[in-house]
Amino acid sequence: MILCLCFEYNCAWIEHSSEIQGIAMKIGLLGHGVVGSGVAEIIDSGRSAEVKDLRVEKMLVRTRQEVTEARITTEVSEILNDPEIEVIAECMGGLEPAHTYVKTALEYGKSVVSSNKKMLAAYYSELMEIAEKNHVMLRMEAAVGGGIPCMENLMRIRRIEPIDSFRGIFNGTTNYILSAMKEEQKEFDEMLKGAQAAGYAERNPGDDIDGFDVRYKVALTCAQAFDALVDPSDIPTFGIRNIHSEDLLHAEERNRTIKLIGWAEDHGDSVMAMVMPVFVKDSDYLSRIPCNLNGIESFSRTLGKAGFVGQGAGSLPTAHAVVQDLIDVSEGRKEVSRNLKKKTVNCRDRKGVYYIRTKQPEVFAEVVAEKLDQNCLITEQVEWKKLEGLLNQAADPDLFLAEVQA
Amino acid sequence: MILCLCFEYNCAWIEHSSEIQGIAMKIGLLGHGVVGSGVAEIIDSGRSAEVKDLRVEKMLVRTRQEVTEARITTEVSEILNDPEIEVIAECMGGLEPAHTYVKTALEYGKSVVSSNKKMLAAYYSELMEIAEKNHVMLRMEAAVGGGIPCMENLMRIRRIEPIDSFRGIFNGTTNYILSAMKEEQKEFDEMLKGAQAAGYAERNPGDDIDGFDVRYKVALTCAQAFDALVDPSDIPTFGIRNIHSEDLLHAEERNRTIKLIGWAEDHGDSVMAMVMPVFVKDSDYLSRIPCNLNGIESFSRTLGKAGFVGQGAGSLPTAHAVVQDLIDVSEGRKEVSRNLKKKTVNCRDRKGVYYIRTKQPEVFAEVVAEKLDQNCLITEQVEWKKLEGLLNQAADPDLFLAEVQA
Repeated sequence: MILCLCFEYNCAWIEHSSEIQGIAMKIGLLGHGVVGSGVAEIIDSGRSAEVKDLRVEKMLVRTRQEVTEARITTEVSEILNDPEIEVIAECMGGLEPAHTYVKTALEYGKSVVSSNKKMLAAYYSELMEIAEKNHVMLRMEAAVGGGIPCMENLMRIRRIEPIDSFRGIFNGTTNYILSAMKEEQKEFDEMLKGAQAAGYAERNPGDDIDGFDVRYKVALTCAQAFDALVDPSDIPTFGIRNIHSEDLLHAEERNRTIKLIGWAEDHGDSVMAMVMPVFVKDSDYLSRIPCNLNGIESFSRTLGKAGFVGQGAGSLPTAHAVVQDLIDVSEGRKEVSRNLKKKTVNCRDRKGVYYIRTKQPEVFAEVVAEKLDQNCLITEQVEWKKLEGLLNQAADPDLFLAEVQA
Repeated sequence: MILCLCFEYNCAWIEHSSEIQGIAMKIGLLGHGVVGSGVAEIIDSGRSAEVKDLRVEKMLVRTRQEVTEARITTEVSEILNDPEIEVIAECMGGLEPAHTYVKTALEYGKSVVSSNKKMLAAYYSELMEIAEKNHVMLRMEAAVGGGIPCMENLMRIRRIEPIDSFRGIFNGTTNYILSAMKEEQKEFDEMLKGAQAAGYAERNPGDDIDGFDVRYKVALTCAQAFDALVDPSDIPTFGIRNIHSEDLLHAEERNRTIKLIGWAEDHGDSVMAMVMPVFVKDSDYLSRIPCNLNGIESFSRTLGKAGFVGQGAGSLPTAHAVVQDLIDVSEGRKEVSRNLKKKTVNCRDRKGVYYIRTKQPEVFAEVVAEKLDQNCLITEQVEWKKLEGLLNQAADPDLFLAEVQA
């Protein structure tokens, strides 16, 4: 044994008494659905020394019918008020009551790991502030890119340099639909039903197909990569609800594949961030991310491109990311010093070439570079503020918009 | 300040007195070439708090002409004998004197970070043993995949579960040549000269184009992913020295792209590991890893596929990986518990379909599935031990072999 003096700032691990005493860290698991049950499965099966140091002490479910073992409860207070539970894994999804539970846990001095992108995107600023004040961790690897370790790797890059930008495929449901439409040459509605049958799409798929799920993830990634707190609703967001098979053919004629892409650049005081279908070049590996996989890449000065590919959703991959965060909490992982700041989203000067299919092509006459047929056109390079004005003018609810990768 | 008792096993960080006292960790840099100069540049420019905690105290160069500043020396003893230098970054390349210097540094109780795959592949077992005995770290992120953080991420996966297999593009030089041959439809010799002119290939390119560089990296990745110590020379290794443009056309006819791939599977007592050109399906994103980039992916039970794409070589990306390792040393990163074991390489039962171009096609008559022309054929599915026998029988020095991805 060694007797030592530790300066407080350097001894985050001291709070993690479980590790020092060799006792497993006790976890309160909120939610026992797709992700939550995966977390319990990985921890219970204990396939490594690190996982054996974790223990799911209690699990919260919604209804009494789900109480199938002693550690399952319908009373959240049994978890939040248990002083032996050091960390909460929140896998409930939705805004409430998840937000209130996470907030309370942080206020009670428990670290929190969450896979809930919607809730985190809405309350990240508030929750991080509470976490810092209470000297606990708030981690969210599973909220972006499912099993893909992009959050952790972005932080590692930031140990050396700022991240300038990122882009990628952030949503497995829409990537499954787009890949299947291309391969099987079928229409969107049919493929959406297929995705729902395969369990890749929810019964109410709006968040996925309208791009909102990607928007939440882009907002969270702006926080992780740039320390930028942005209002998700400020991010111009277009989904694939209106896509037709002819759009894929128009992309194919240009040696491109349609993918739903989210991207952002740090501009200092503001952030340029968008979510939109893109005609991705067939020579770009993102065009070849298949099925429900995700692919996310960042750019920074010395490292250049850093790309991450993997399962963007699903029970065990997403649970794997939750458990990675839990191990980081149990090891008292040193965090990168951060300086979170509110930033505006500003895409006005962003220049792009766009593919548009609309019943009102005449509205876009002044920016047309090429007419493909009666309803489909490619624009010249145009500033976003200009195009946005024309889109508002057209007000075509069936319009399909995609950026054409240069 | 907090007074605390720490059990020895849990206090690796105590040795890192620099961190506790807020003084920069002093680094001895061996080698000031492509990678070494990048390391000095990143640390000297100090773009983050973590990097500012590092200091390049001394740098070793080969000749007096290179001594351009006070901290540069030609005397390695000035570095190895300096008790204030806690960690050595070895970026010299080659077997000796790099091996002796690294060994001595570890014996003197200094942690070592190395980008030297050739030396590490040859001496990994010996060096890890010395590192463990002296309670110091030996890290090698930059030795495999350049800037790509695959070594760290493999270790993170192993915190949860064993890694079952990995595969990927591990060599930027050959990927540059193969990509350029496909795009510009030129022959190998011309493209090799282009790669040399662009600084992607060395004047003596044998290690790259014959697959030996990939072999070193596959051996090191077996150690990192499987805890398997394998003899690199046991890994069946085929390069692209004999490739012709017609081989690329034969691949294209099958909707495939030729890439030089290294892969391995952990079979418990043995490892199946190979290095070979592969006809990669055009629907596989590895077929779209361009220019001198690398792409490496692992497979494990709950996470599934985890892919990493980025700069596999180059001064600053590789230096970035070295600096990541240095920060991990300075933070006293907790290591995954390991159990390194010597394992044999056994590919005898591996089944595959192969493309062969040879002046002696008659030797392969009994395994032919399709004759493409006088010299080119596709085999039926055949066990490696069978094919290896036929290759030895043919003994054709100009033969080109590639596996056809199923």
